[in-house]
Amino acid sequence: MPTILVLNGPNLNLLGLRQPEIYGHATLADVEALCQRTARGAGLAADCRQTNHEGVMIDWIHAARGTASGILINPGGWSHTSVALLDALNAYEAPVVEVHISNIHRREAFRHHSHISARAEAVIAGCGVQGYALGLLHLAERLGAAGA
Amino acid sequence: MPTILVLNGPNLNLLGLRQPEIYGHATLADVEALCQRTARGAGLAADCRQTNHEGVMIDWIHAARGTASGILINPGGWSHTSVALLDALNAYEAPVVEVHISNIHRREAFRHHSHISARAEAVIAGCGVQGYALGLLHLAERLGAAGA
Amino acid sequence: MPTILVLNGPNLNLLGLRQPEIYGHATLADVEALCQRTARGAGLAADCRQTNHEGVMIDWIHAARGTASGILINPGGWSHTSVALLDALNAYEAPVVEVHISNIHRREAFRHHSHISARAEAVIAGCGVQGYALGLLHLAERLGAAGA
Amino acid sequence: MPTILVLNGPNLNLLGLRQPEIYGHATLADVEALCQRTARGAGLAADCRQTNHEGVMIDWIHAARGTASGILINPGGWSHTSVALLDALNAYEAPVVEVHISNIHRREAFRHHSHISARAEAVIAGCGVQGYALGLLHLAERLGAAGA
Amino acid sequence: MPTILVLNGPNLNLLGLRQPEIYGHATLADVEALCQRTARGAGLAADCRQTNHEGVMIDWIHAARGTASGILINPGGWSHTSVALLDALNAYEAPVVEVHISNIHRREAFRHHSHISARAEAVIAGCGVQGYALGLLHLAERLGAAGA
Amino acid sequence: MPTILVLNGPNLNLLGLRQPEIYGHATLADVEALCQRTARGAGLAADCRQTNHEGVMIDWIHAARGTASGILINPGGWSHTSVALLDALNAYEAPVVEVHISNIHRREAFRHHSHISARAEAVIAGCGVQGYALGLLHLAERLGAAGA
Amino acid sequence: MPTILVLNGPNLNLLGLRQPEIYGHATLADVEALCQRTARGAGLAADCRQTNHEGVMIDWIHAARGTASGILINPGGWSHTSVALLDALNAYEAPVVEVHISNIHRREAFRHHSHISARAEAVIAGCGVQGYALGLLHLAERLGAAGA
Amino acid sequence: MPTILVLNGPNLNLLGLRQPEIYGHATLADVEALCQRTARGAGLAADCRQTNHEGVMIDWIHAARGTASGILINPGGWSHTSVALLDALNAYEAPVVEVHISNIHRREAFRHHSHISARAEAVIAGCGVQGYALGLLHLAERLGAAGA
Amino acid sequence: MPTILVLNGPNLNLLGLRQPEIYGHATLADVEALCQRTARGAGLAADCRQTNHEGVMIDWIHAARGTASGILINPGGWSHTSVALLDALNAYEAPVVEVHISNIHRREAFRHHSHISARAEAVIAGCGVQGYALGLLHLAERLGAAGA
Amino acid sequence: MPTILVLNGPNLNLLGLRQPEIYGHATLADVEALCQRTARGAGLAADCRQTNHEGVMIDWIHAARGTASGILINPGGWSHTSVALLDALNAYEAPVVEVHISNIHRREAFRHHSHISARAEAVIAGCGVQGYALGLLHLAERLGAAGA
Amino acid sequence: MPTILVLNGPNLNLLGLRQPEIYGHATLADVEALCQRTARGAGLAADCRQTNHEGVMIDWIHAARGTASGILINPGGWSHTSVALLDALNAYEAPVVEVHISNIHRREAFRHHSHISARAEAVIAGCGVQGYALGLLHLAERLGAAGA
Amino acid sequence: MPTILVLNGPNLNLLGLRQPEIYGHATLADVEALCQRTARGAGLAADCRQTNHEGVMIDWIHAARGTASGILINPGGWSHTSVALLDALNAYEAPVVEVHISNIHRREAFRHHSHISARAEAVIAGCGVQGYALGLLHLAERLGAAGA
Repeated sequence: MPTILVLNGPNLNLLGLRQPEIYGHATLADVEALCQRTARGAGLAADCRQTNHEGVMIDWIHAARGTASGILINPGGWSHTSVALLDALNAYEAPVVEVHISNIHRREAFRHHSHISARAEAVIAGCGVQGYALGLLHLAERLGAAGA
Repeated sequence: MPTILVLNGPNLNLLGLRQPEIYGHATLADVEALCQRTARGAGLAADCRQTNHEGVMIDWIHAARGTASGILINPGGWSHTSVALLDALNAYEAPVVEVHISNIHRREAFRHHSHISARAEAVIAGCGVQGYALGLLHLAERLGAAGA
Repeated sequence: MPTILVLNGPNLNLLGLRQPEIYGHATLADVEALCQRTARGAGLAADCRQTNHEGVMIDWIHAARGTASGILINPGGWSHTSVALLDALNAYEAPVVEVHISNIHRREAFRHHSHISARAEAVIAGCGVQGYALGLLHLAERLGAAGA
Repeated sequence: MPTILVLNGPNLNLLGLRQPEIYGHATLADVEALCQRTARGAGLAADCRQTNHEGVMIDWIHAARGTASGILINPGGWSHTSVALLDALNAYEAPVVEVHISNIHRREAFRHHSHISARAEAVIAGCGVQGYALGLLHLAERLGAAGA
Repeated sequence: MPTILVLNGPNLNLLGLRQPEIYGHATLADVEALCQRTARGAGLAADCRQTNHEGVMIDWIHAARGTASGILINPGGWSHTSVALLDALNAYEAPVVEVHISNIHRREAFRHHSHISARAEAVIAGCGVQGYALGLLHLAERLGAAGA
Repeated sequence: MPTILVLNGPNLNLLGLRQPEIYGHATLADVEALCQRTARGAGLAADCRQTNHEGVMIDWIHAARGTASGILINPGGWSHTSVALLDALNAYEAPVVEVHISNIHRREAFRHHSHISARAEAVIAGCGVQGYALGLLHLAERLGAAGA
Repeated sequence: MPTILVLNGPNLNLLGLRQPEIYGHATLADVEALCQRTARGAGLAADCRQTNHEGVMIDWIHAARGTASGILINPGGWSHTSVALLDALNAYEAPVVEVHISNIHRREAFRHHSHISARAEAVIAGCGVQGYALGLLHLAERLGAAGA
Repeated sequence: MPTILVLNGPNLNLLGLRQPEIYGHATLADVEALCQRTARGAGLAADCRQTNHEGVMIDWIHAARGTASGILINPGGWSHTSVALLDALNAYEAPVVEVHISNIHRREAFRHHSHISARAEAVIAGCGVQGYALGLLHLAERLGAAGA
Repeated sequence: MPTILVLNGPNLNLLGLRQPEIYGHATLADVEALCQRTARGAGLAADCRQTNHEGVMIDWIHAARGTASGILINPGGWSHTSVALLDALNAYEAPVVEVHISNIHRREAFRHHSHISARAEAVIAGCGVQGYALGLLHLAERLGAAGA
Repeated sequence: MPTILVLNGPNLNLLGLRQPEIYGHATLADVEALCQRTARGAGLAADCRQTNHEGVMIDWIHAARGTASGILINPGGWSHTSVALLDALNAYEAPVVEVHISNIHRREAFRHHSHISARAEAVIAGCGVQGYALGLLHLAERLGAAGA
Repeated sequence: MPTILVLNGPNLNLLGLRQPEIYGHATLADVEALCQRTARGAGLAADCRQTNHEGVMIDWIHAARGTASGILINPGGWSHTSVALLDALNAYEAPVVEVHISNIHRREAFRHHSHISARAEAVIAGCGVQGYALGLLHLAERLGAAGA
Repeated sequence: MPTILVLNGPNLNLLGLRQPEIYGHATLADVEALCQRTARGAGLAADCRQTNHEGVMIDWIHAARGTASGILINPGGWSHTSVALLDALNAYEAPVVEVHISNIHRREAFRHHSHISARAEAVIAGCGVQGYALGLLHLAERLGAAGA
């Protein structure tokens, strides 16, 4: 069963607590449970992680080379600023889907551009936490997973 | 059963024929069948239309006021240039989801900005024609449809 | 009695219904009645039309060559994007007045520039629907109409 | 009877003498007479002033707080450069109408942006000196004046 | 005998009447006669059309797929604003030549950039109506037509 | 006892009256009393002035050469537009502290840049009227005043 | 007694050693002692920390939610580049004061913009290490601390 | 004998005292004496004035209409910011020469553009106070003065 | 018989050898033979030259004043950088046609702007070496040459 | 024997594995062996380290103060985004050489600017892994090392 | 007697013939005679040269090192484009005065910036050919020449 | 033995004499001797030339086609302005290394971009004249020369 690495970047550990008018009331645990449930239904395994440390995120992506069949990533604030993260994903050989809980195009101008979008196969923004599930469904289809 | 207006803009009548390396091999008929199937499964009705005429698209959006529970739109090339279309959607009171078959952020710079994204609740790009299905699932969830 | 072509562009058929906090509660019928009343009082005839189709608008402007003594136009969203409309007006030989119901300079940045303003003799923005009446009064004065 | 403060900024004392191909042949006295006449007809009183001193203009606007029911202002060259004037108008609580004799959007690029337009309820440009009369009519309507 | 679709965009129906100091005195009928004559001489057939409706233009380009051996297009004002038209031409598989009667690089800055030039094989500007004939000669050479 | 010139620019005479949601409820008299009190406590004398006239402000700064040990200035709207004021401060030889009551970096983009900041030793923004007191404490420390 | 989290970002551990012509001769220990002293005098407790790791800084800010009454932060080089840090502060509910030892507006252009300033209530720059003390005084006043 | 109005703008009353490394050691009195001497030698009369008040400068320029044969102006910091001053000079019908003591093109970027240069016949920068004399010689030649 | 100066700029001596995927396989000698042949057929004489030295090109253009009836120029890389060449052509009184072998609008962004286009009557790009022949035909028509 | 700190930033641990068409086939171990060999030959000692954690990199640079005679750094993706790293190097007193394996000026536009280049004495890009050796030779020459 | 090198750049050999509405009717010979006359009167020798070849100009400037006491240069079109010329002047140790016959600030935008102005001590523009004489007078004063 | 063409552009004939604080004290003769020495050691022959004439440089590059195995070029001021030089190098088929004696990224902004860097395989800046030697070593390695 193909494994998807589900990566959440900085401040997403506060989901449900932080600015709920923007990010909603679901917690990170809720999101990870949703990912597990959706992945299973789609014939995938989900390996969910969160970190506020860019270096840790890069290390995880490196380790995914040859072991994970796809990456679903919400890069949070690093989307707009981290070329190092982009380079790490450039060094990864399988599909990448980028998720944003809010519609970043309706927010401050500096959130409209994401370095990661230049690498990701697909970008889903503004679907709330359901975006994670939709992203997994897309990876399942790309990978021809059993449940797709 | 809530009805979703599924709108395809200019050149999408050529889906499957036009630049398949970018847009894939599914035809517009395939996409509309996928939408019908996905909508039904999610407790929604889909009303699918395509036009190359901006004025026709605006008229359809106007007519959706009070009759359609949501709009799923792939504005094609108008995404980047049509304030009139944005205004039509601004005059519509229910959820709007914007879909792009390709990841517009990996293409020419003039495709990175969409006027419509400033209005849409959610934006899905680069999931191929599956993006239409994912967008309908999101509308179903937003609307609390029976199949969501 | 000189005739003024009063042209309303995309989405203005929804006046009174659409975003009344921006555009007010008067309907397009109200506006056209106001134009008729004001024109008569100023010694002018008003020929009022609205379309959501750019091509139709261009055709109307072409037909005004040699038949209408002036044009009062609210180009709506086309103000900011249509060089074709500008060119049509450039091919028209008599005075043009541009009207915007809202003050476009207090709204999103992309509404601050109008291609049409480079052609129009006068621009009136933010006077609500009264702007149409004021524009007709100005055309009357320019044309030396009986009621000016 | 509500009083409107009619303010003319720098160089407008030279109206009729200065660049008549742009500004026309009416003098400042003509404009002020037109304002008095129009105001009376619309049930308003007009208090007309002109200065080449930014500080004097700001003082006048301050003094209008609580005493004038509206301001009609042609800020001249300060339109494009004076944040201090904008702030003075921001400190004023009643309607402001901005008038330009010429259509500033057809002139040099630095004249296309007006700080004052971000504060004014309405902007009238290119109607010649009649613009003052149209602006007063608009203030009358906003204020529900007897003659509106 | 290969057929060339000769397309004229918005306002070109007014050729000869509109701004002759820029566009000259030849009418659209003159241009189409010139195209027929030149095409015949070069071993080509010319199918000449003009529209002010973007959607109609797109439909014509779609219909040219597999039927016309080349397109000669003067996109008029759409050159600078229409991504939809660019996309339609991107979906066309044979050579495209872009013609402008005036030298657009000597006019307003917004006319210096053409979306269509990113797709066209060749661009001819400022040769007056002769530009159509020169464009047909170039298509003849590219297609190895009998008269080239 | 070293004297500090405390300068308030345009519209600050309206403090407490004008946009209290931005500038708070303290009046200019309150601010000047706070400055006197703080200065005394810090071993300084405060000479407080306000003007809406740029020329007057420049004259005061000139007069401070050789007589005042420091300048505390809230340049108001001139911050963003007046090179003449910058030049006057460049001609002054002792420390300058710039104060803004609101955090100008959270407001309109044109308020983010201050010409004066290129000259001032220190900038304090968003501390409300307490910013004046903090600025005086900083000048006291720089000058090694008795109360610092 | 309310606690203030005093956060120093990258390279501030080298204070007093690094570029003293810009940052002065006081060490980080001096700064923290000054903060303790000032906080106590103002009825506050200061919890001082420094890190060169963005992730650690974000973790500290998260932990401050509900435990610290305010944050005084010198974000160093991250001011200009870290949206992740901005988001962490956006997730914090109490007042934030941003301090810079040097006047960043007199240095290289890339130092003129701080992402953090869009979130901070107040910004103090160029007061040297005294800026920390002034920031604490401001937090005391905002919080109505005993010593304010 | 034709009269030249020699106008010095803000801060030039401090010449010789202010930033002598930029502006040199000659005082305003020295400059005016040099102007008188040079004018006399060139068959001109010089009327020398200085003000820090923009409004006063504008009034002087207005009064020069029909009385002065030319204007020699050092607009100081207003060069870069005052459209009102530009408009005043636009309303003046005779030659204008702009002088800057320093070479403004070697200083901060915001000093490289002068609104006044769009109106002045000639610009002389970086010749120190001799620039005033050279400007007068140029006006003498333009006016065909006796001493030219 | 009117003479046309046919000028080729830097690197065009390598035609046919250099980057044939961009510039094709015809050599400069081929181009000059084509020009001679086309000119003769159109009732013109062609004087063909090539240089890699900007000064030589300028000297040739100067010498063409009063001797050549038109200039056909491929300015190569100087198109984008040489104001001196533009000035030389500005000093030439007869028609100028600019030719580019490739479509410069499909190449690097710095090739999209040509200083020369602001002077040339017509611009032909992307027609390969046939562009020279088309340019000569256009000059023949402009000059009313015998063969036009 | 002077010691050079050889620092490799994010993703360089994947050298040889990651995008070999850009970065080549040598591994990080190969690079470090090359550095050791070259350093020894040039009379230097090399201390080689790699990290994906910005904070670790900053700590290493701090520790190099007074202990390492020079730094050779490949900052990877941080080149373009990290002011904190620049500040750490600004706090270092000895020579710094910046190396990039690929020629960053031929890649995406956001890779053309490096914050580090504003601090480094020298920059070497596009020499592949040999660039490290060349950088060490340059440091040897600067330091007058035995093997230089 | 100090020698001044008087350098004229491209196209200035056509003075008097080329665009006299911009550059006037004096020829290069007239200008050189004026320079000789003015230089002699000011106690200077003038060595006048003109070239259309950048390399020749650079060679002349190199040769002036140690032999000419100053350079008066009209760089023509190279002003806006030649860093090589700037570098040549940077390698020259004595005063440089830049002259433009027309007021370049009233012409096309690309003429507003001169690379040479960043090196020249003084810039004189718009004084016609008299500008050369004024520039020599300024050099005489700087050099303390006998006739100054 | 492969030959490397070592090209020095404008002003480099003055090396050692010109701005030694930027370019050092070595002369061009020293540099050429260093190149000869380094080339020989690396199994290469060096053919060293310098010119101030762009056309001569282009001619030399053309002549290198098929005769020189690589080019080492210091384009001096042309780096930033010459597309013609870029095109000449684009027409050259073997490796190109670009050298700058100073670190151009620490100098004026207009020196940060080099057209040549878009063509060169490698760029070395700020290594002083040793940069030439390092560049030759890199060419030797690329070419697999005997001494590499």
